[in-house]
Amino acid sequence: MDLAIVDTLALTMRNDGLGALENATIGVEDGEIAYVGTAESFDGDPDRTVDGAGTLTLPGLVNVHAHTGLTLLRGGAQDVPEIEWMNRALGPLAETMGDDDHVAGARLGVLEALLSGVTTMGEYAANVSRLVEEVYEPMGVRVVATETINAVAESTGDLGPDDPYPLDPVKGEDALERNEALFEEYADHDRVSAMYGPQALDMVSPELLAEIRSRAERHDRGVHMHVAQGDRERRQIEARYGDGETTVSVLEELGLVSDRLLAAHLHGASAAERRRLADAGVRMAACPSSIAAIDGITPPLCAFREAGGTVGIGTDQAPGPGGHDFLRELRTTALLSKTDRADPTAFPAREALRVATIEGARALGIDDEVGSLEVGKRADVAVLDLETPSTAPVVSEPLRTAIPNVVYGANAGLVGTVLVGGDVVVEDGAVTTVDEEGVLEKATARAEAVFSRAAADWRAADSRLVDRQ
Amino acid sequence: MDLAIVDTLALTMRNDGLGALENATIGVEDGEIAYVGTAESFDGDPDRTVDGAGTLTLPGLVNVHAHTGLTLLRGGAQDVPEIEWMNRALGPLAETMGDDDHVAGARLGVLEALLSGVTTMGEYAANVSRLVEEVYEPMGVRVVATETINAVAESTGDLGPDDPYPLDPVKGEDALERNEALFEEYADHDRVSAMYGPQALDMVSPELLAEIRSRAERHDRGVHMHVAQGDRERRQIEARYGDGETTVSVLEELGLVSDRLLAAHLHGASAAERRRLADAGVRMAACPSSIAAIDGITPPLCAFREAGGTVGIGTDQAPGPGGHDFLRELRTTALLSKTDRADPTAFPAREALRVATIEGARALGIDDEVGSLEVGKRADVAVLDLETPSTAPVVSEPLRTAIPNVVYGANAGLVGTVLVGGDVVVEDGAVTTVDEEGVLEKATARAEAVFSRAAADWRAADSRLVDRQ
Repeated sequence: MDLAIVDTLALTMRNDGLGALENATIGVEDGEIAYVGTAESFDGDPDRTVDGAGTLTLPGLVNVHAHTGLTLLRGGAQDVPEIEWMNRALGPLAETMGDDDHVAGARLGVLEALLSGVTTMGEYAANVSRLVEEVYEPMGVRVVATETINAVAESTGDLGPDDPYPLDPVKGEDALERNEALFEEYADHDRVSAMYGPQALDMVSPELLAEIRSRAERHDRGVHMHVAQGDRERRQIEARYGDGETTVSVLEELGLVSDRLLAAHLHGASAAERRRLADAGVRMAACPSSIAAIDGITPPLCAFREAGGTVGIGTDQAPGPGGHDFLRELRTTALLSKTDRADPTAFPAREALRVATIEGARALGIDDEVGSLEVGKRADVAVLDLETPSTAPVVSEPLRTAIPNVVYGANAGLVGTVLVGGDVVVEDGAVTTVDEEGVLEKATARAEAVFSRAAADWRAADSRLVDRQ
Repeated sequence: MDLAIVDTLALTMRNDGLGALENATIGVEDGEIAYVGTAESFDGDPDRTVDGAGTLTLPGLVNVHAHTGLTLLRGGAQDVPEIEWMNRALGPLAETMGDDDHVAGARLGVLEALLSGVTTMGEYAANVSRLVEEVYEPMGVRVVATETINAVAESTGDLGPDDPYPLDPVKGEDALERNEALFEEYADHDRVSAMYGPQALDMVSPELLAEIRSRAERHDRGVHMHVAQGDRERRQIEARYGDGETTVSVLEELGLVSDRLLAAHLHGASAAERRRLADAGVRMAACPSSIAAIDGITPPLCAFREAGGTVGIGTDQAPGPGGHDFLRELRTTALLSKTDRADPTAFPAREALRVATIEGARALGIDDEVGSLEVGKRADVAVLDLETPSTAPVVSEPLRTAIPNVVYGANAGLVGTVLVGGDVVVEDGAVTTVDEEGVLEKATARAEAVFSRAAADWRAADSRLVDRQ
């Protein structure tokens, strides 16, 4: 056997609960989980042993929705009105970014995610194959890569909010072909898979969406899409499809509402629409910190779960919510859900941990491979030290405090060991696959250049942030 | 000069803004801040130099309201209905705690706070002098100590929620005398001061409150009290003082509503009452994570600030919100405020940093001593490394990303150096005044004993948590 984690409290996520096992041993061989059980029954002879005393071992965490390239712009678009966020605050900065800047930002974002126990990212980006090649593969992190398909013409001129954006069919088709190439290139890859990424209903034509739907059905592939993101989108959909039409109603007409669809956000959908989506098997990507920071809204993840829907959590992007610390995101999700529902029992710790692991894997359609600690699954594992000032004391009787403490107390600092496909990518809290200091230095240098290039446009865009400087 | 922090980005909090100074030097002598300014104008010859390259230096953070002894019960009372939290979940555990358990819990909680840049705690506890002597003084942390004055008779028997609790005058007077002794003992102490602590209007008699008010006025002292904590209190006040009476109306009649009062929580007060409190100079202690976790409510801190009131932030206690990481609390406060107000501009980073420092100091009545980096103030200082995966990149043009990044990205892990009264209490991220591992071990051992002693009562109390085990 290649490796064993011994003497740990394991939360396996088998069946419907947490599947807690005290004093557990987890054995890994050929990239797979080869043993989960007691030390007594374990007869492997591991080449390497991770001492799990005082630790909690989880399936590697699954971040279902992130644009990690934008981590380069962390701090660039916080505390602004929703209507300014995209066009007046983030836009002038993002427009000056080149592919190399996105790579530098993604390295920083994935580093942060990995240090918080994440082993799978649902990455959503233009030219996503660059990020796969230059970030995910070298860092050893599993990725479900989605190519952003956005057909809005480069110059939208001086449009009002109710004038439909002009679309450029060639731009959309080019993006679809980049997206298509991912499926071919990574067809047999252990750590990389792909989804189609029509960005949002207001940003692609119905013809392009019909083509995507047809290909997804033909080849049995998933579609990852921003759905019902709020007022700006709502006005575009009414302008383009007519009064009374909504994103969900149009997607239903176009045949996109099915169990192939992973729908991000959904805060602009009605309760009845969300129930229809859940009934149809649509999965939800909820990004609580991001939607709270940018829109002042808690995403309706509890309601979607109550309607029987599957939910995964994403950290979206750094400008706004601040970053990709996924453990912090669990606590934030719990507290935002409790205040949103006026119910302190909403989104309890055990649900948070399932959503962060097996349900997130289900949302990305890879729960047959990862998301639980079960023999035969890929060995994606996070080992967390709970003997820290923020998570101690751990007691197991009459209740296990480790479970609330990892959700309400933890942050990235306590992740000790992370395995992806059996490879040790974090050891003693440090990433083994990349030079952490180099990632930080390069990101800072590139950010300085981007912010500097963008300064004049940023000032001219005149968001509320400009006055504050 | 004893010490200088050089080449840092300092947020001094002078005047009404953040008072940002790039490439700043902070000089410390005899426990006071002796220099704040450019390196060029600095002519001190410091015995010790802290290299501040890549760091952000803040006035030490001020946590205005915490019951740190309960850190021993972290994880013991999460995700329960509000009505069960105190009596059925936390109560059976807390009742088995002795003074030594509170000391062990407080050491853990104060350790956590200190590692997140906190230099002053507003501690609220029964027998608080034990915590001052055995936790705060040895750890070197500034404390505003409040003795819990609770006169509810030990056995309240089988009361309904609308039956007023019987009060025990002797119990209340004994607590007041312990409280009074603090003022005498710490009259000239550099790091310890005191406030009166009538726990809440439903837990003390009007006669005792009148006595406290009279002493506070005579000796010019502050009163720290839980005010308008919600439905349980509201029903007690109506039962005791008559229909239509509220905590605020009764406190007004008793003469407690003045600029001596630090009122914790306030979510049960009406908007009109909160405005009256703010007009009278009452200060608010807001504990967003705690009230979100326990009550499913965001405390009305934005409204109180808009009404002109002074607000400080507290972490309250660990069972519920999870702990005392104050940097995490700033981010949580911002996100909860944004969703509460449906406004992404609510509680922006710069307000968070002022509330965490100078306004928190004002809430505790010690802003003449601490809360800003100004010559002559006590040298309470936190130096944070922002070159981390969660807070980089730091750029300064055209906007300073350090300011949003420390609020939206930071957690305890990036605190490098902390000074209290000029003494280095955290160095290279490690506490110098106490053996961290020993604190964790002792807390864990004591927690195991407490949980074990409490197990039968905890099961008998039959909170919703019991079924889940």
